[in-house]
Amino acid sequence: MTRLMKGSPYWSSRCAALEPYTPGEQPRDRRYIKLNTNESPYPPSPKVLEALKTAANGDLRLYPDPTCLALRETIARRYGLPGPEWVFVGNGSDEILAFAFAAFFGPRKRTGSTPASGSGLITGQSGPDPLYQDEAPLLFPDITYSFYPVYAQLWNIPYGTIPVSDTFEIDPREYLQRAAGVVLANPNAPTGRALGKGALRELAAFHQQNQRVVLIDEAYVDFGGESMAEDVKQFDNLLVVHTLSKSRSLAGLRVGYALGHPDLIEGLRRIKDSFNSYTLDRLALAGAQAAIEDRDYYDAMAARIIATRERTCTQLEALGFEVIPSGANFIFIRHPARRGAELFQSLRDRGILVRHWNKERISEYLRVSIGTDEEMDSFVGCCQELVEKPNT
Amino acid sequence: MTRLMKGSPYWSSRCAALEPYTPGEQPRDRRYIKLNTNESPYPPSPKVLEALKTAANGDLRLYPDPTCLALRETIARRYGLPGPEWVFVGNGSDEILAFAFAAFFGPRKRTGSTPASGSGLITGQSGPDPLYQDEAPLLFPDITYSFYPVYAQLWNIPYGTIPVSDTFEIDPREYLQRAAGVVLANPNAPTGRALGKGALRELAAFHQQNQRVVLIDEAYVDFGGESMAEDVKQFDNLLVVHTLSKSRSLAGLRVGYALGHPDLIEGLRRIKDSFNSYTLDRLALAGAQAAIEDRDYYDAMAARIIATRERTCTQLEALGFEVIPSGANFIFIRHPARRGAELFQSLRDRGILVRHWNKERISEYLRVSIGTDEEMDSFVGCCQELVEKPNT
Repeated sequence: MTRLMKGSPYWSSRCAALEPYTPGEQPRDRRYIKLNTNESPYPPSPKVLEALKTAANGDLRLYPDPTCLALRETIARRYGLPGPEWVFVGNGSDEILAFAFAAFFGPRKRTGSTPASGSGLITGQSGPDPLYQDEAPLLFPDITYSFYPVYAQLWNIPYGTIPVSDTFEIDPREYLQRAAGVVLANPNAPTGRALGKGALRELAAFHQQNQRVVLIDEAYVDFGGESMAEDVKQFDNLLVVHTLSKSRSLAGLRVGYALGHPDLIEGLRRIKDSFNSYTLDRLALAGAQAAIEDRDYYDAMAARIIATRERTCTQLEALGFEVIPSGANFIFIRHPARRGAELFQSLRDRGILVRHWNKERISEYLRVSIGTDEEMDSFVGCCQELVEKPNT
Repeated sequence: MTRLMKGSPYWSSRCAALEPYTPGEQPRDRRYIKLNTNESPYPPSPKVLEALKTAANGDLRLYPDPTCLALRETIARRYGLPGPEWVFVGNGSDEILAFAFAAFFGPRKRTGSTPASGSGLITGQSGPDPLYQDEAPLLFPDITYSFYPVYAQLWNIPYGTIPVSDTFEIDPREYLQRAAGVVLANPNAPTGRALGKGALRELAAFHQQNQRVVLIDEAYVDFGGESMAEDVKQFDNLLVVHTLSKSRSLAGLRVGYALGHPDLIEGLRRIKDSFNSYTLDRLALAGAQAAIEDRDYYDAMAARIIATRERTCTQLEALGFEVIPSGANFIFIRHPARRGAELFQSLRDRGILVRHWNKERISEYLRVSIGTDEEMDSFVGCCQELVEKPNT
């Protein structure tokens, strides 16, 4: 199947062929109960806001530390890692994922040499190379964070998807096969399903033998998942990616981090320093550091969100909803008697935003972020109304 | 010539082959007079700091506007452009340059169709394509911002460099040839030399015929260059890139913007949304908007820096330095009787940091950012000492 080339004659083929990721809507037309982008309903720690106000000073005329050393040291201490060389930080975990795809999942030569570049004309677009031809594809589930195939497309990385079960379960044993690498979100998005550490350790060990990277995207791990953070010390092919957007209530500050063996961190740095020397501004550095340090505050917020989630699940099940077990700050639900698209629109009309995809296998489901107890009461109340009196 | 593959078996060939950009040092060992990274010696506008403090609030739990609409509207108004669809904003102008190289300078198919991607296995690394084979290279000067060849390498873009003259002059007529695009910094870095608009308009018109993009990097334009900002209305192939790091005293906030025809802006957006949905945090958006609006403050700061530059140039010439005419907030100088590396080290030993490259054609030069009058007095004083008594 082919389709017409989109867009402008000024675009490169890469640009024209992209199908960019679409984030959840950020509407400005009215006030909604916003349960569509997995933000925290609670504000950042007061210590974070204090640190940000302090950093809003004349030093902003100076570049930030391009190595982000102080923040990386703080994160290393937090996770019991030997030092900052085990930590990478980025402008949101999305940026780190983009760098990781480029650093670890592109084609690799198996020889010991590579052409050196020099001044003058360089033919970088090198064309065919027989050494690449037996590369296996990068693997990830068919139902997962929908940015993964976009990254693969951006960097021209061959990939294959492995179907999750009808109840959205991932069987990690299916990933014990030759691959350019494996990417799993744990808990997974948009399903919320979490995997245990045992199976993921087996996965890391398998691909360590073949020298391929296993990337575990733990954006939602603080809401009940089992983190592989400390396992990076054992598996030099394991990269664990976190974000401050969810459990740290800092979606608006754009900070993520990755934990891994120093060779992996150095790979990320090489891509980053070929892209943008200073990806984190002085305020983001200061706020992120305060957030990592204030564990008590954020542990308490995560506990509240988990409690609200469990209460909401019970209520929805009483209304006949099917609720996929969630280890995240969102739930993935459907009602046997209501279409997903219809529920989405009816909730929107009532001022409640959730996320819905017109996409194979998940079009009857809604992904609902966990808000405050009050917000979820409103949501459950609307659901009850829609389930009992669908035509109002 | 080949060299040993660097690094880890986990790295992709792309990662292993990169030669990342090296920013100027940000030393922590002692206090320096810092004239090495072209930061402003003056703080940001008080209105910017106020806006940042106000934005350091509980709303940071929410994602920023991924379209950055309010800031883009402000920038469009500032430059008299029809609307925000003529403006792109990014996490520093470096990020915008990285996106622009991917969007406009990669290989292009000349056919009307492109393979559609679907689920399952995608072979993105498509190998040879005869349609690409007669692509002309991207062109930029041999002496210019050293990130340009790094971007080309990152995206596998063939490029060629055109030598500047012995006095670092660019002849724009040399760029009136078949090319995948042209990138010029104006004023140029690290030389400071500025080009007039007439020649650049001729350049834009020439490449408009061939539907190729001309990118003018105006990072330093506010210190005496002639901006092409308004010419984007006439040339739909002209992209003008600015930064808030220099004339807006906000190197620490990481904001840049590009002005161009909506088709070019849409090309940048496609790359960005395949990379990171939210590249600017809420604080950066708020601070940047206040900065764009406070023209009086920043015009006054730029005038002070220009006055200090002119005074410093006169003093250095009196000491026998050769000073390249500068339209930027830095100067490019050498002394006929002193080696560049020696001057660099001697200044460093005296607590003054400037930039020096061990690189063909420019190894005898120093690039010196313009600081306050007091800082430049110290710098000139040291230079005098080094020129008159070199062995102390």
